[in-house]
Amino acid sequence: MFNRLDKKDPGFEDALDQLLAFEDETSEAVESAVRDIIRDVRDRGDAAVLEYTQRFDRLETESAEALRVPADRLKAAADALDPLLREAIESSIARVREYHERQKAALGEGDWTFTDGEGNRLGQRVRGMARVGLYAPGGKAAYPSTVIMTAVPARVAGVDELVLTVPTPGGEVNPAVLAAAYLAGVDEVYTIGGAQAVAALAYGTQTIAPVDKIVGPGNIYVATAKNQVFGKVGIDMIAGPSEVCVVADSTADADWLVMDLFAQAEHDEMAQAILVSWDAALLQAVAEKTESALASMPRADIIRTSLADRGALILVGDAAEAAHVVNRIAPEHLEVVTADNDALLADIRFAGAIFVGEHSAEVMGDYTAGPSHVLPTSGTARFASPLGIYDFQVRSSVVDCSREGSVKLARDAAILATEEGLAAHAESANLRARG
Amino acid sequence: MFNRLDKKDPGFEDALDQLLAFEDETSEAVESAVRDIIRDVRDRGDAAVLEYTQRFDRLETESAEALRVPADRLKAAADALDPLLREAIESSIARVREYHERQKAALGEGDWTFTDGEGNRLGQRVRGMARVGLYAPGGKAAYPSTVIMTAVPARVAGVDELVLTVPTPGGEVNPAVLAAAYLAGVDEVYTIGGAQAVAALAYGTQTIAPVDKIVGPGNIYVATAKNQVFGKVGIDMIAGPSEVCVVADSTADADWLVMDLFAQAEHDEMAQAILVSWDAALLQAVAEKTESALASMPRADIIRTSLADRGALILVGDAAEAAHVVNRIAPEHLEVVTADNDALLADIRFAGAIFVGEHSAEVMGDYTAGPSHVLPTSGTARFASPLGIYDFQVRSSVVDCSREGSVKLARDAAILATEEGLAAHAESANLRARG
Repeated sequence: MFNRLDKKDPGFEDALDQLLAFEDETSEAVESAVRDIIRDVRDRGDAAVLEYTQRFDRLETESAEALRVPADRLKAAADALDPLLREAIESSIARVREYHERQKAALGEGDWTFTDGEGNRLGQRVRGMARVGLYAPGGKAAYPSTVIMTAVPARVAGVDELVLTVPTPGGEVNPAVLAAAYLAGVDEVYTIGGAQAVAALAYGTQTIAPVDKIVGPGNIYVATAKNQVFGKVGIDMIAGPSEVCVVADSTADADWLVMDLFAQAEHDEMAQAILVSWDAALLQAVAEKTESALASMPRADIIRTSLADRGALILVGDAAEAAHVVNRIAPEHLEVVTADNDALLADIRFAGAIFVGEHSAEVMGDYTAGPSHVLPTSGTARFASPLGIYDFQVRSSVVDCSREGSVKLARDAAILATEEGLAAHAESANLRARG
Repeated sequence: MFNRLDKKDPGFEDALDQLLAFEDETSEAVESAVRDIIRDVRDRGDAAVLEYTQRFDRLETESAEALRVPADRLKAAADALDPLLREAIESSIARVREYHERQKAALGEGDWTFTDGEGNRLGQRVRGMARVGLYAPGGKAAYPSTVIMTAVPARVAGVDELVLTVPTPGGEVNPAVLAAAYLAGVDEVYTIGGAQAVAALAYGTQTIAPVDKIVGPGNIYVATAKNQVFGKVGIDMIAGPSEVCVVADSTADADWLVMDLFAQAEHDEMAQAILVSWDAALLQAVAEKTESALASMPRADIIRTSLADRGALILVGDAAEAAHVVNRIAPEHLEVVTADNDALLADIRFAGAIFVGEHSAEVMGDYTAGPSHVLPTSGTARFASPLGIYDFQVRSSVVDCSREGSVKLARDAAILATEEGLAAHAESANLRARG
């Protein structure tokens, strides 16, 4: 069922490229449709949002105000939760909160300054953003964990107002999503989705005040809309299919690995589950256990397609080669289950989240470990990071020069400004150089 | 020459909106032209880059290799610098380096972990990116400071390879740019620009290896290309026209303020210079000094247009109202020159860089103060930050669960996975919960 690759094969690098290839280019038809929706929402506000919500989500409401979920309905959803589920959601929120509070402390909490050798004070201030939009997919893929993993880091970062949009196709509302929004402290919830939701968040309507940044996963229309409103507002990364790369040796339990790979593959047909090992027997054991393990899986068809199209068992010569392959992939999720995980990790540079040892299942990262599960996909871990408090904070440089301290800086600035042909810059500097 | 606004006027908020309005929407013609160029460079590599460079920059070279500036030519450019200019460039580099080393230390340098109440180790790793592309505009607007302000933070962040592209229209090379690249430690320099340079950096060609992120300012073709390759590579903010907002009272010197406003306005006709004060006499003094001060300015025409179209003197009632106006603007540069700057700054939340007191001219921030001059423009300081080491680092979440510590996390994860209908997720968690 899995593709099989061997690092020794002369065609290995090409085969790996092909395995990882993922066509993320948006069609011009989608680009154009999204552009029209955004322009329309920008021009007509609520009326356009109502029409698109009716057309795409088959949701008729008498007014735009009715698209907002009242606060008492959010609370009621939380109160009606099964107690075990409520406890699990609250526990997840508490852990995600603690992790991000630790992150905030580790990043120095905020403002910092130093005084240079000339007596000038320099530094940076840090503030939370004012208003952030969270996008959560709707219908069958409406996940309370998405709300937790975006809202809690934003809250810890100090954002004033959190706005959630979640489409409810055909009116289908997921109560656990509403409950999670309530328990995570989201301020406003609107049952809208797609490009129209992104446009409403970015430009505002009569009912929805505009936000400063939009984060969270969505389908191709949402991703394209986020890309198009980038600049007017901030956005997080555009998410591709989810992936896991597991590096394991003979110390790993093949049954556990099979289920970890399935957990990735069951997301959708484009999800990617890769196992890398220098132990051919382990790869063979995983391959052999796959078919029987599939029997009990409700999403067996999705898993089968995902593994056949994009899954792989990769044989490497040793741990160093495994690290090389991981860095080539720069996976969203990395699990390492080997006799010497520290040695392996020392060679690994790019991965969204790293799960160390057999008790650190990636699924704990999805729900309860603490870090956000919003992670860079499709190799973007080469340049992007897990969603964190830094995604919801803004920094300001601070320059506070003394009279004496400014002289040398001003003289050099005047020389450089003159070189660049900017006379007013030079004169502005010279006024300070002359004191 | 300046627009005059008064916070007391009933139409003030609308007038301010109009003053700040800046049409940043790219035309579909530009979008489409850029898309074609990117696709062509992606498909044909060097051959396409050579053709576009010949067509748009009137630069004929015999081969793509000839577009790379040899290392000895970079060194020669530095050696040939006027000694005063060289000293100013080296001093700027040293100051920008020190500022970003302090920034790195203030952010905790890198990896952090903590152990939770269950005995699990959680945290984050930080690594520099592998290869980053720096874009610098060419021709008359080729500025050595752009190279310093992008290359040095990247170097301090720990990036392995820095690649600079700078177009040389008609073959016009700015030796100070090459010298700055050499002195700031850039590894490769290519004399290409426009969408074709962005495409070559993002996708690579036979001659230019692809990068992980592209930063730096450029014209509308460069900005559009960066937006289109976003996702394949990381990008920094799309820069709009440069702006300054000065808040001053009677303690400020009107002549100095005039020159600071000119320094902003001389960039280009779209640049924006705004003075906010509760002192009507100061605003009047600045207005009256403007015309005579213009006489000595080589770029008087640009300044005049910029001030008339987008410049403003804004009268407010007090410091609190001034802070309100500043937060509405969220300016790229903020200068505060008042009797109590600390009190004013306590109310200010959004600004790219803050210059405190009359000796802290914004021009020092352009060249020598230390923070990068690559800053969020057009109100994007609401969600974006100055270019810094965090723009060149990637983070990985770390989850390292103990056998005992994983049980509670796994149980809750299984409950949430079951709620979300993901059976393999639940089973993967249950395997750990059962230990």
